[in-house]
Amino acid sequence: MRSLGLEEVYARIDANLDEYLEGLFEMLSQPSISTLGIGIKEMSSLLQRRMEEIGFRTQVIQSAGHPFIFGEISSNARNRPTVLIYGHYDVQPVEPLDAWVSEPFKPTIREGRIYARGAGDNKGQLYAQLMGIKALKDFRGGELPVNVKCIFEGEEENGSPNLEGFVKTHKDLLKADLVYTSDGPVHESGRPMLVFGVRGLLYVELTARGAKRDLHSGNWGGPVPNPAWDLVKLLEGMRDRNGRVAIKGFYDDVKRPTRSDKAAFARIPLNRASVAASLGLKPSQLPAGQRFYEKLMAEPTLNICGIYGGYTGKGSKTVIPASASVKMDMRLVPDQDPEDIYRKLVRHVRLHSPGVLITKMSSSLPSRTSLDSPFAAPIASAVKDATKMEPVIYPSLGATLPDSAFTRELGVPSIIVPYANIDEGNHGPNENLKVENFLRGIRTAAAVLESLSRVTPS
Amino acid sequence: MRSLGLEEVYARIDANLDEYLEGLFEMLSQPSISTLGIGIKEMSSLLQRRMEEIGFRTQVIQSAGHPFIFGEISSNARNRPTVLIYGHYDVQPVEPLDAWVSEPFKPTIREGRIYARGAGDNKGQLYAQLMGIKALKDFRGGELPVNVKCIFEGEEENGSPNLEGFVKTHKDLLKADLVYTSDGPVHESGRPMLVFGVRGLLYVELTARGAKRDLHSGNWGGPVPNPAWDLVKLLEGMRDRNGRVAIKGFYDDVKRPTRSDKAAFARIPLNRASVAASLGLKPSQLPAGQRFYEKLMAEPTLNICGIYGGYTGKGSKTVIPASASVKMDMRLVPDQDPEDIYRKLVRHVRLHSPGVLITKMSSSLPSRTSLDSPFAAPIASAVKDATKMEPVIYPSLGATLPDSAFTRELGVPSIIVPYANIDEGNHGPNENLKVENFLRGIRTAAAVLESLSRVTPS
Repeated sequence: MRSLGLEEVYARIDANLDEYLEGLFEMLSQPSISTLGIGIKEMSSLLQRRMEEIGFRTQVIQSAGHPFIFGEISSNARNRPTVLIYGHYDVQPVEPLDAWVSEPFKPTIREGRIYARGAGDNKGQLYAQLMGIKALKDFRGGELPVNVKCIFEGEEENGSPNLEGFVKTHKDLLKADLVYTSDGPVHESGRPMLVFGVRGLLYVELTARGAKRDLHSGNWGGPVPNPAWDLVKLLEGMRDRNGRVAIKGFYDDVKRPTRSDKAAFARIPLNRASVAASLGLKPSQLPAGQRFYEKLMAEPTLNICGIYGGYTGKGSKTVIPASASVKMDMRLVPDQDPEDIYRKLVRHVRLHSPGVLITKMSSSLPSRTSLDSPFAAPIASAVKDATKMEPVIYPSLGATLPDSAFTRELGVPSIIVPYANIDEGNHGPNENLKVENFLRGIRTAAAVLESLSRVTPS
Repeated sequence: MRSLGLEEVYARIDANLDEYLEGLFEMLSQPSISTLGIGIKEMSSLLQRRMEEIGFRTQVIQSAGHPFIFGEISSNARNRPTVLIYGHYDVQPVEPLDAWVSEPFKPTIREGRIYARGAGDNKGQLYAQLMGIKALKDFRGGELPVNVKCIFEGEEENGSPNLEGFVKTHKDLLKADLVYTSDGPVHESGRPMLVFGVRGLLYVELTARGAKRDLHSGNWGGPVPNPAWDLVKLLEGMRDRNGRVAIKGFYDDVKRPTRSDKAAFARIPLNRASVAASLGLKPSQLPAGQRFYEKLMAEPTLNICGIYGGYTGKGSKTVIPASASVKMDMRLVPDQDPEDIYRKLVRHVRLHSPGVLITKMSSSLPSRTSLDSPFAAPIASAVKDATKMEPVIYPSLGATLPDSAFTRELGVPSIIVPYANIDEGNHGPNENLKVENFLRGIRTAAAVLESLSRVTPS
């Protein structure tokens, strides 16, 4: 059997769509809500079975939480790189159920979209990866051009609490040259993306305390201190007049964006007027040109997620609050370390507002893969070949994913290529994946693996 | 019939306690919840009837809200001052009903206390005034030493929305030389008080606005503005580093306390350690000595009653809030005018944070009567005579009452002498008035009216 060219592989994939949809529907029909512990066992068994059918040697590995599913297929060709594919088989809860047009675990196609919880996030994309592998294998005489490993977790929607620990203790098993993930939507321009990183996170709550109960502001206002003022003062002291973070040492470890980062920022499409309109802002409230993406990708934030204290109901009540609190997240960039930033924050608070309580809620390391990684150009070409669109080079998400578990613990590059449509509606009702995006995902997975065979493992 | 001395009047009052209690119980058995519009008509009729029985010529005067009850008894003696007694016949709602030991509108005496809604606030004190008048009259051959007018309203617990307008349109009817009120509790030392004023009030809500919905702080944090930071900056800019209000002109009209004010502050008993302990604060968090009362009575405040925006629930959620709001009250002192302060606040906000919305919730003028008023010394002597305790001279409440309706519109002094026990529990369950305080109130009312006969009206 001769080896088909990629265009022929694409054609075979297109012809096999019904079979792929049937398999995906089976995955989508199985609930697997990690936060509620619903259907996890059944889902992991189903996924393992499907991987075995494709030819993976699999293991189900228990963790403190839901199991990890590992699978591996080695290439017969020598000196080929190993790609580790990450994905997750758990989904978000489905509430509000009333708002779904069709039931969340009864996948349905309407107007070219597959509606089901997990269609976009992440079963549809995970399944496209598997089908891309299967297609390459089936239509190429059973041979894969690279070594493939898969690690699928069941707790991503729960914040991946066990992923880093799992990677640390399974470094040999997971050893690879590249981590390749498909999650999230394509760029809002409709073009595919190559994503090279994520920002880290530190989430804290600060509470200033006053009297032991809310006091009548008439009877006590003046002599009695108000903790809301203390909190305002502390917060205002955390930023300078330009809005930069004034916590000592906050920026110490921030890497300045490279030339190629800056060039990438400038090349990302940005329709500022349209973005502003969609957010209900004036265009002038958003940075123009490459500053928009530079701020999103290369600069850390100190963000107030929520602030509260005293009387917050309708109308008026005259009290001095007993306490006032703020919930803050910091999105961190390489090489900031959330533990270090936390220490600096604590030092700042102790120095300026010694009575304020600090609660650390969560943290995650930032992660970046070089745009000059030897895998970048082949993947970009492959994505372009499979989608017939020029991919957007996206140096980093502004958001946070557990990418550092791979880039730091395994020390390998990690590239994310999202397959879902921008309006996938994940986490909400009527989550969906366009059939077109599903098919394009399968093609892309096949093309990417094929392209990686041209990279010599280091 | 010879005219009795005050000690004999007191003895007669003591002997008539059962009759007074019977009348008070009738008042307390009649619900009159102004905010719910319950029993107002029945209560005002009952009160009018009782006043007629004492000898008042009465009028029930409708307003936009609940009716005012006016009554008048002229003295036959010439050149005697006219005293206008203010009080209110409405009460607070009774919830939580479960927490009452006996039903709120079935007055009951337990351990020397009359338990009922309105026992302290204000029916018990209002009725003590009426019985003091009745006692003087009955035991003095039907003669009163001064001209007495009463104005009782039914909307005090609703914020007295129609009082100022009523006073403005009934200046002739209400013409008097002094307004005398009994409301609130005695000083926490247990000593009676002469209160000479109240602070004014301005209540506003400020809202900073960002995008039209809460945004994911990962996807948007950095390029997108956060209104909570705008609010923090605006708030911090409203105070200088010493905590003084930095709104331009805020202090312009603040009268410095007089020598006699300062002397009065210094003479008010203050157990700082005990006050701090009751609030859950350290003594060092409260001002010492006369500064405590100077801040409470002679200085305005800019107080955060409540602050809120973004995610304020349990745990963490990573959002950029769509808006952030603060509810603030300002307690104002003579000669600050809430309308003027509001204009200054608006100017400050427009200048520093032009996008911030301002909502005015309510306002009230401050009021002060001179400690050197010719009525002050006679009343203080009378209170001491009736209670056998040295009264505390209290230049002003920190709180706000509609006192300016009298002092500004009628241009007369106003002195408040509270009769209720400190633990009257008004506005809460198990409101009560000690029988001892009720009796002392009747004596005090009689003694005060008697003492005022010695002042020549101007």
